[in-house]
Amino acid sequence: FCNVTLWLYQLSKAGKLCVPAMNVNDSVTKQKFDNLYCCRESILDGLKRTTDVMFGGKQVIVCGYGEVGKGCCAALKALGAIVYVTEIDPICALQACMDGFRVVKLNEVIRQVDVIITCTGNKNVVTRDQLDRMKNGSIVCNMGHSNTEIDVASLRTPELTWERVRSQVDHVIWPDGKRVILLAEGRLLNLSCSTVPTFVLSITATTQALALIELYNAPEGRYKQDVYLLPKKMDEYVASLHLATFDAHLTELSDEQAKYLGLNKNGPFKPNYYRY
Amino acid sequence: FCNVTLWLYQLSKAGKLCVPAMNVNDSVTKQKFDNLYCCRESILDGLKRTTDVMFGGKQVIVCGYGEVGKGCCAALKALGAIVYVTEIDPICALQACMDGFRVVKLNEVIRQVDVIITCTGNKNVVTRDQLDRMKNGSIVCNMGHSNTEIDVASLRTPELTWERVRSQVDHVIWPDGKRVILLAEGRLLNLSCSTVPTFVLSITATTQALALIELYNAPEGRYKQDVYLLPKKMDEYVASLHLATFDAHLTELSDEQAKYLGLNKNGPFKPNYYRY
Amino acid sequence: FCNVTLWLYQLSKAGKLCVPAMNVNDSVTKQKFDNLYCCRESILDGLKRTTDVMFGGKQVIVCGYGEVGKGCCAALKALGAIVYVTEIDPICALQACMDGFRVVKLNEVIRQVDVIITCTGNKNVVTRDQLDRMKNGSIVCNMGHSNTEIDVASLRTPELTWERVRSQVDHVIWPDGKRVILLAEGRLLNLSCSTVPTFVLSITATTQALALIELYNAPEGRYKQDVYLLPKKMDEYVASLHLATFDAHLTELSDEQAKYLGLNKNGPFKPNYYRY
Amino acid sequence: FCNVTLWLYQLSKAGKLCVPAMNVNDSVTKQKFDNLYCCRESILDGLKRTTDVMFGGKQVIVCGYGEVGKGCCAALKALGAIVYVTEIDPICALQACMDGFRVVKLNEVIRQVDVIITCTGNKNVVTRDQLDRMKNGSIVCNMGHSNTEIDVASLRTPELTWERVRSQVDHVIWPDGKRVILLAEGRLLNLSCSTVPTFVLSITATTQALALIELYNAPEGRYKQDVYLLPKKMDEYVASLHLATFDAHLTELSDEQAKYLGLNKNGPFKPNYYRY
Repeated sequence: FCNVTLWLYQLSKAGKLCVPAMNVNDSVTKQKFDNLYCCRESILDGLKRTTDVMFGGKQVIVCGYGEVGKGCCAALKALGAIVYVTEIDPICALQACMDGFRVVKLNEVIRQVDVIITCTGNKNVVTRDQLDRMKNGSIVCNMGHSNTEIDVASLRTPELTWERVRSQVDHVIWPDGKRVILLAEGRLLNLSCSTVPTFVLSITATTQALALIELYNAPEGRYKQDVYLLPKKMDEYVASLHLATFDAHLTELSDEQAKYLGLNKNGPFKPNYYRY
Repeated sequence: FCNVTLWLYQLSKAGKLCVPAMNVNDSVTKQKFDNLYCCRESILDGLKRTTDVMFGGKQVIVCGYGEVGKGCCAALKALGAIVYVTEIDPICALQACMDGFRVVKLNEVIRQVDVIITCTGNKNVVTRDQLDRMKNGSIVCNMGHSNTEIDVASLRTPELTWERVRSQVDHVIWPDGKRVILLAEGRLLNLSCSTVPTFVLSITATTQALALIELYNAPEGRYKQDVYLLPKKMDEYVASLHLATFDAHLTELSDEQAKYLGLNKNGPFKPNYYRY
Repeated sequence: FCNVTLWLYQLSKAGKLCVPAMNVNDSVTKQKFDNLYCCRESILDGLKRTTDVMFGGKQVIVCGYGEVGKGCCAALKALGAIVYVTEIDPICALQACMDGFRVVKLNEVIRQVDVIITCTGNKNVVTRDQLDRMKNGSIVCNMGHSNTEIDVASLRTPELTWERVRSQVDHVIWPDGKRVILLAEGRLLNLSCSTVPTFVLSITATTQALALIELYNAPEGRYKQDVYLLPKKMDEYVASLHLATFDAHLTELSDEQAKYLGLNKNGPFKPNYYRY
Repeated sequence: FCNVTLWLYQLSKAGKLCVPAMNVNDSVTKQKFDNLYCCRESILDGLKRTTDVMFGGKQVIVCGYGEVGKGCCAALKALGAIVYVTEIDPICALQACMDGFRVVKLNEVIRQVDVIITCTGNKNVVTRDQLDRMKNGSIVCNMGHSNTEIDVASLRTPELTWERVRSQVDHVIWPDGKRVILLAEGRLLNLSCSTVPTFVLSITATTQALALIELYNAPEGRYKQDVYLLPKKMDEYVASLHLATFDAHLTELSDEQAKYLGLNKNGPFKPNYYRY
């Protein structure tokens, strides 16, 4: 999850938030589209545009099995890569198992993988010590948050040579000739080396616009100096605005069905804790 | 989502709940395992054991794209079926689109599908009028809640003949000779015609046991006459107890990383609203 | 590939075949349906009906990546198993790599796998020595040819106890209490513990019937005392007879297109060596 | 299949081939890697680099379900597209059904698809009349042979405006403002707008080199003025040379097993008609 959001909650906890804030990052439509579905495509795109690597048969480790990690893993598995996952959270780890990925510590497979992808929001997930043990020709990149996940600073030492082979692509060369291919100097691959589809931008922008409208229109006192999730109904509205693109046809509840389920026919359709 | 849970919340709203209650159904481990991952397997198993149908090339409509529907769709697609989805909720509908399923109204495809599977928790999702229009030899079954989703009562009329061809399998025969294969008389296919893996039972039972222990051990006043979700930490504990089965190895946060993320090294690792 | 066919070719080579023979097993429709597509479903069905095993997260090794092995691997991967492959043929091994499976020797993973599936047509692919090293509760079964692939005879020794837990399911118990679950005593799982869809039977029976008609109708001298593949045109005819089941609509070549491709508008559409 | 190969066979038939020729295009390793596995990746790459289209939820029609079509379909389905297939050959059509694709005529879905991809080797598979009926913003491209599959010439008429929006991407604009996005002016997308991985080049080049060595070294008279397939053993050799890339470990036949199967321990492992 996004660190900006984390800071908002920390500000709020510390009593330092001076206006109401909407955490649009964690609305469903934002989470699933900007993170899961978008990354499922941009990991492939980012790797291809920079390295022309063939995915089939490659051994890949994805650090972190949140929405971004899930998207990366699904895409790479589908194209014939053998994917390993690292996780700190036992629930996400169990999900990775059930989705067909071996959950390992990075050190267990560091010598054999062809690609490392970080998606954790954490720092120093890949260290110099681990980079030292990677195979010649292996690729390291970051799909997570900011540029802290790979310890890139540790690679800027005199014994290693950097060779820029094209925009966003550096070969870091060890004294024995081994090359590790570092993408976007450890910054976000999806933003640096891929594009974001207009469809995803539309969803994210709609979510943000509706959040602003909600904050502006809300009666005095509904929102205090705290962090709020987008009201479920607005989240559903964002989704409904984008269904026409796919010629998708919603089913409507009959009066009898709405009554049976205790729902309003126009939504919201799910309790707040629903996970999708 | 489960209607028993719905009733608990309705009781609570009405002020009629006389003890604290844990909504274990909506803990992550329960939701994902008992619903998503378990149904992904039991839909195939239930259909095979009852009908020996070949999945490849079959046109299937899944009503409802919640956890159960997602599991059914994923499994059938993977085995070569062509799957359509109906939804009332625009968010779930958009998920279905992104996962590669056409979102339609049941009436649009009723004449062409080979199998209908209901996963809604709703009532009368498949009506007599629709059953009248199905193809000869098509299969109708329910993976959702109770036995209300298919209007089975409407099939008990004099002009239709019922023929029990084996346990849990009825051929309903129209005057023109058309047969529709009804499984488990519209009750839950996964409970009636399939089995639940011991692994899933273990997860669900652990969740329930931990919930009881929590309620029993909690200091006076922590839980009132209301419905609570299982504390995140217990949810994570359930997951961690089951990782050994898969020889999955968790990564531990370093002190520096835990501090960076503002997390305790032992969890909980996610905010309550996190969707997994 | 099928050993009966092998024997036919050996008879022919030895000059001992006294009538013309059609190798219908290697017609495309037979190969892909009876082997690839059928096994893709029956491996899941056979394992579930006998053991109720959950596929998600299980480590499985499939010995042999021919049509049967390809079907087993695809299905298990799709349902969340982690699948390893053994192969003797470098071409099939490379296919396994590109499809996302690690190609290993059985001994490399014997201690960690939950399920072994043999699909080789070979003998003693799983030996007593290997069975000795399997985990408690692991499953061994055969989807290949006859009952020789697993060295079952080697398990009939005094120190091992056999316990029949249900039809087609034996627990073989080691002195230390370890149990290995042997299905169908090493005979074909798909025939012993699963069913063959009528659709597949229809394809196979049509192929056989057309082969007999061809042999009967052929002018004197067209077929000698040798083994022949079904004429491509008949193979295509078998397929075309089964398209209506799926409401599949073929595109017809225009005269101009047929001329451009040098094809007859009614087929055959491919050279004999085409692999599909 | 490749038209150059077709011409070779036509020359041979006409008695006009003046040297022996190897049809390396139809060796297994060439077919599966240069066509199936390579196109599985390059279709995604080619579409992304030119249009940044999001695959999830898109309706795509793939014309032709040979190796190239199979690769395109598998990749797009895996990334959440809804894929339709056209075919002239009933066997390939039945394969498409079993792989989960609806087999239709182009005219049935021309108004609803977002992307058309041709993979037929044929000419005029997409005609002006069909292009007239496509949706605004739809994409048309060719992964098949030469530049004849889409009738591009028919689009060069005065009432249509062509707008080059970037290299290899033209918007063809109808009088009512509708735009169809034509890639590479109908030439091969994978060669024009994507890259070929070095791994695939290595396989193809190895196959060609071995074919030349075989022709050069063969004793007088083994090869006449005809077209030959690469000897199976060489095909296997090409594969075995590339296994180390994936750290794949072949299993060796024991003497007893080789005898049982009637095979040489070093191959060839399959009969010539084997399809992989």
